[in-house]
Amino acid sequence: MSRPERPKQMLALTADETMLQLTATRVAGEAFDAPIVVANARHTDMIEEQLAAVGAKPQALILEPIGRNTAPAIALAALVARDPEAPLLVMPSDHVIEDVDAFRAAIAAALPVVQDGWMVTFGIAPDAPEIGYGYIKVGEPIADGVHRVDRFVEKPPLADAEAMLADGGYAWNGGIFLFRADAYLDALAQYEPVMLDAVRRSLAEGERVGTHVRPAAKPFAEAPNESIDYAVMEKASRVAVVPVTMGWNDVGSWDALHAISAADAGGNAIRGDVIALDTTNCLARTDGARIAMVGVSNLIVVASGNDILILPRGRSQEVKKLLEAMKD
Amino acid sequence: MSRPERPKQMLALTADETMLQLTATRVAGEAFDAPIVVANARHTDMIEEQLAAVGAKPQALILEPIGRNTAPAIALAALVARDPEAPLLVMPSDHVIEDVDAFRAAIAAALPVVQDGWMVTFGIAPDAPEIGYGYIKVGEPIADGVHRVDRFVEKPPLADAEAMLADGGYAWNGGIFLFRADAYLDALAQYEPVMLDAVRRSLAEGERVGTHVRPAAKPFAEAPNESIDYAVMEKASRVAVVPVTMGWNDVGSWDALHAISAADAGGNAIRGDVIALDTTNCLARTDGARIAMVGVSNLIVVASGNDILILPRGRSQEVKKLLEAMKD
Repeated sequence: MSRPERPKQMLALTADETMLQLTATRVAGEAFDAPIVVANARHTDMIEEQLAAVGAKPQALILEPIGRNTAPAIALAALVARDPEAPLLVMPSDHVIEDVDAFRAAIAAALPVVQDGWMVTFGIAPDAPEIGYGYIKVGEPIADGVHRVDRFVEKPPLADAEAMLADGGYAWNGGIFLFRADAYLDALAQYEPVMLDAVRRSLAEGERVGTHVRPAAKPFAEAPNESIDYAVMEKASRVAVVPVTMGWNDVGSWDALHAISAADAGGNAIRGDVIALDTTNCLARTDGARIAMVGVSNLIVVASGNDILILPRGRSQEVKKLLEAMKD
Repeated sequence: MSRPERPKQMLALTADETMLQLTATRVAGEAFDAPIVVANARHTDMIEEQLAAVGAKPQALILEPIGRNTAPAIALAALVARDPEAPLLVMPSDHVIEDVDAFRAAIAAALPVVQDGWMVTFGIAPDAPEIGYGYIKVGEPIADGVHRVDRFVEKPPLADAEAMLADGGYAWNGGIFLFRADAYLDALAQYEPVMLDAVRRSLAEGERVGTHVRPAAKPFAEAPNESIDYAVMEKASRVAVVPVTMGWNDVGSWDALHAISAADAGGNAIRGDVIALDTTNCLARTDGARIAMVGVSNLIVVASGNDILILPRGRSQEVKKLLEAMKD
């Protein structure tokens, strides 16, 4: 279902709203200003429609001419922010957070140190030895609920993941951050001056029409293609983590989606035009075609456009293998 | 896949040709004249296209205004046949016969008694206690390979089917017949005079343009809605059976189709745009959508138009239950 022209965050996979809509409204009504959205320029219309449908009015919609990973994208937002001293809450738009109250409490815990100049990442309490996430070793406490980051651990092999889960002193790096815009820009100036310069020039040479900000492609392409973790968080000294249990899920596979989806009495998580008889523990999704299932269990069935995907639960990581076979 | 506007016989389920095409060409090149086709008038164009594509030129295409079961349909053909004394080989167009040589040998065995006025049915050697077919008790031999029909048995309960299979003296009634046109019409005159009269009038009041024969609807509707078995075969006295093993299959379910389909090394019978990885003993059919399967076994997956059907092998009889649920 997720395709370049309509990526995961623009699909209503987990609720009636798309994940972009859920993200844009997650902290609405709090002390936060209107959102700054950074996105691929090709998705402009879809983003505006989806945000308008939930009453979210971005103060800026920054339209990247090409993707250069998260560090330059966040630099764009930090430079466009109205108040350089204001804390920026940086959220990927393709994650699910079920317990928003817990998330808000974590934000409240982080704010004092953030206003003091710390950069905060939210550490997801791990419940499995996932090898698809980066980990954070939680260090000494520096405020109520806030700890210094001892170190970042790249996506680990399974044995290391199991050891960290058993240790208990680690959290997943969920990719959600809180820091002042100027703190981030200062860190970039120190560790990635070429990137900061490229992003600054892309805005200076770009154009702004209403809320639409269009960085110039040539200078933006000169920014190194780096994640915020690699470019800044792993290098800076005043980096803190707020561990939090909040029903976080990056919906990285159909199995992950099944795990967080509401199920019927038979354990089936169904959305769309689906008839299931004598069927248990299946995930069925369709955006058009009618699916009829009889007497099957533990299957993932997805129909999208002209494509139908069928695989057993527990094997949805193999979709990538399938896509490669389809290209062949 | 089978729908009123495009029934099973007009689908290429078992080969590159549709079952209508396979039937029309099955005895081509033998001593048989060009076929007489009896069909629903709504399928006229599709039938002509399919027959033309395999070079089959019917001597008559009889277009029923409504369906009145097989006895009146065959009466139309018998009345339209050029030579009333010629043997008619009556074949449903939605059956598969894999061993055409065996079928031809059975026809050759039957011809002498047929020319002598007997009505012959071909008895399929049963290989399972099927409850979906009628059975024939094979009687005394009357010629080489030809036996008198002792009696017809309606679709039996399982215990009876098992007993007949164990007995060995029974054959399935495959619905394929050989008799002279006049023998059939004589039997109708004796057992179903109202039917014969109605069919005669439908032709007299109907029209014929080229090969297209259009019986008049009003008299044809007066013909009783009866099968040839009930109207004639079970009543007439000179009825014979030629038992034959010829890879006959009425493709009555997706399981039946899987059983007769060529399979790959993994036991998968696949037709259409299907990618199957680590998949075994599955049937996958699509007339448009692209199916991708990973790590599944013993599934039937069918995509047709806007519909997708998924069920385990061995349960394809439950498609009817599913259709009822879909109507609800």
